[in-house]
Amino acid sequence: MDCILRQTHFLNARLADGSLADLTVTGGRFSAIAPAANAAAPPAGAVDLAGQLVLPAFVEGHIHLDTSFYGDAWRPHIPCTDGFDVRERVAFQMRSLEQAAPMDERAKNQLELCVGHGSLAMRSHVMVDAAVGLKHVETILGVREKYRELIDIQLVAFPQSGILSSPRTAELLDEALKLGCDLIGGLDPASFDRDVNGHLDVVFGLAERRGVGVDIHLHDGGTLGLFEIEEICARTAAMSMQGKVAVSHAYALGHISADTLARAGEMLAASGVAIMTNAPGNHPFPPVAALRKAGVTVFAGSDNIRDSWWPYGDGDMLNRANMIGYRSGFYEDRELEAACDLVSHAGAKALGLEGYGIAVGAKADFVALKAEHVPEAVVAVPRERTVFRRGMLVARDSRMTS
Amino acid sequence: MDCILRQTHFLNARLADGSLADLTVTGGRFSAIAPAANAAAPPAGAVDLAGQLVLPAFVEGHIHLDTSFYGDAWRPHIPCTDGFDVRERVAFQMRSLEQAAPMDERAKNQLELCVGHGSLAMRSHVMVDAAVGLKHVETILGVREKYRELIDIQLVAFPQSGILSSPRTAELLDEALKLGCDLIGGLDPASFDRDVNGHLDVVFGLAERRGVGVDIHLHDGGTLGLFEIEEICARTAAMSMQGKVAVSHAYALGHISADTLARAGEMLAASGVAIMTNAPGNHPFPPVAALRKAGVTVFAGSDNIRDSWWPYGDGDMLNRANMIGYRSGFYEDRELEAACDLVSHAGAKALGLEGYGIAVGAKADFVALKAEHVPEAVVAVPRERTVFRRGMLVARDSRMTS
Repeated sequence: MDCILRQTHFLNARLADGSLADLTVTGGRFSAIAPAANAAAPPAGAVDLAGQLVLPAFVEGHIHLDTSFYGDAWRPHIPCTDGFDVRERVAFQMRSLEQAAPMDERAKNQLELCVGHGSLAMRSHVMVDAAVGLKHVETILGVREKYRELIDIQLVAFPQSGILSSPRTAELLDEALKLGCDLIGGLDPASFDRDVNGHLDVVFGLAERRGVGVDIHLHDGGTLGLFEIEEICARTAAMSMQGKVAVSHAYALGHISADTLARAGEMLAASGVAIMTNAPGNHPFPPVAALRKAGVTVFAGSDNIRDSWWPYGDGDMLNRANMIGYRSGFYEDRELEAACDLVSHAGAKALGLEGYGIAVGAKADFVALKAEHVPEAVVAVPRERTVFRRGMLVARDSRMTS
Repeated sequence: MDCILRQTHFLNARLADGSLADLTVTGGRFSAIAPAANAAAPPAGAVDLAGQLVLPAFVEGHIHLDTSFYGDAWRPHIPCTDGFDVRERVAFQMRSLEQAAPMDERAKNQLELCVGHGSLAMRSHVMVDAAVGLKHVETILGVREKYRELIDIQLVAFPQSGILSSPRTAELLDEALKLGCDLIGGLDPASFDRDVNGHLDVVFGLAERRGVGVDIHLHDGGTLGLFEIEEICARTAAMSMQGKVAVSHAYALGHISADTLARAGEMLAASGVAIMTNAPGNHPFPPVAALRKAGVTVFAGSDNIRDSWWPYGDGDMLNRANMIGYRSGFYEDRELEAACDLVSHAGAKALGLEGYGIAVGAKADFVALKAEHVPEAVVAVPRERTVFRRGMLVARDSRMTS
């Protein structure tokens, strides 16, 4: 991508505050942002955004690049035989994946879906266990390399089959980090491995040894899940890992009383542990407004997109912001803005992204769409949008341009 | 609309069962549906649907044509001063509507939004109270007349400010029915008018006098709401109005135990009372699967679209089916098909529509879109679609063609 010396002008961009601005991009970063000049003779090659709202490119904070069937044959969802069971679902997943198109093709389908909708940074969990070994990690590392000019991808070595209950997984996770994964993952230390301390010892031990962040899948609910969150916070603080640890899903935070939640919010904020939610449809999830008020970084992800876990997901983080707002009862403008924050600035903070935003010096990764302001963008979710990577057009109307 | 004698051929339409068919439309109705012939010389003017899925046009089962600001200036949502209060919200609405664009323009914006997405039949509630009198009804009756070639509209005379607690409203509701409203509405007989029997006496009395159906807004929750549903079912059965009565929202059905729900389902099915839901985002709503299993007609609507009650709503009933599925934990194909049924066949049944569906003799009101089958349509919600009214193109890519 030849953008090092290139300078591009974007005219009449509507900023989040409602003002119109001209944006100059030099070498892939914003070099100037000034009130719209309406110059009689605009610079050669200038792009007139004609008052379209400009948002920083969305941050896809939780996805599974290795397991989606998006773009592959339709696979009807298979229910568990007796209520939801993670182990049974993992077994279904293994069987389905064996019959699926090659992983790199499926990952590419999913990446292009996300980029098309305007996500230019993402965190993907990638399965590591005794059965698949490092195969998924190696494939997705290759996909990341191939798409590095287009999208920034963080990979989490994800123990989909547990750590203590899946042989050699601790060693495999360590290998995955050496190969290039950016974070170490985890999975329900209590309900899956039946050993909270044993599971977290491995996770935080690897984080320390390899100097990486942590992002743990935690579906465990109620007081059990809260106990695990307390343990994660305590270890994060003890290891001075504030800002480098996230808990994904954290359904427990949606199950507890307001008083208990207030204390949990203080604890999460103080220990710098972020919470990821996709605003699931039919069960409680972390109360976004209360956690944000407590100072917790709450970010968002699609989670599974059309895979063996469920058939939903469209890779559109603006639609995810809409869903988060809808599920959270966000009606006021400031609330709709908060929903958008989860898929943009808060996501960038959780992922520790450098140079994020519509600001001089920031990378010129942005989305332009027809909306008066952020609240309208969140309720209308316009699919007509253009996506720019380092100031260069990469997608239009939710499809990649090349 | 000159379609009386016109014959049109639609080739290679994918039906819900996956088969490809050629559809012939004569005088606005399907006159033949046959396996795709792939004829070397297709009939002149034939439309090749190229394997696109064909669904009957969606049924918008609950909307408020008189109160939306869609297409008008953005109005930030104003929260109630102390928790949700219907009377305060009605007061906000009155103030906001006074400053809004003319009602017929706003209704037109909303209608075109709905038709663009593929709804060609709808039930709209229209406010009647002491303050607005019959003004809303008269305006929306005019809009209905203007759009009658494009969309079939049922109007409900809706006592937005209660009946017993709003002077002259019973008389105004009667006038609204005489003017042309098709159904008599109601609003929380207990919490609003504080008199369940008094409120229902007026509603069912007017239904009997004018020979119209009933569709009651019921937000009252828990055992109170259930009590009101029991009263509505009892009156429906006593007056032999099975199939002509609906309860909109019926949140109470989402608050009760499985055993109580099972009994409520039997009662609703036996008395032929339908339930309308829009799958609200942040509180319980009627359990769709359990009610359907009990034989209850469950249908769907957008409810408010970007008005003083909330900023959400897009008028896309396929997206509503997606939301209903997402909120109901519908993952299996048969469940996704059920979600689609709510916005199509079940809606048609609840509204008592004649000639609905993709069948010989039915009105050729349909939507064609790129999806392999109904489950994929529900999860993907393609906006690229064409909408046909009586066999004639009226919308493309979610916008009206003229």
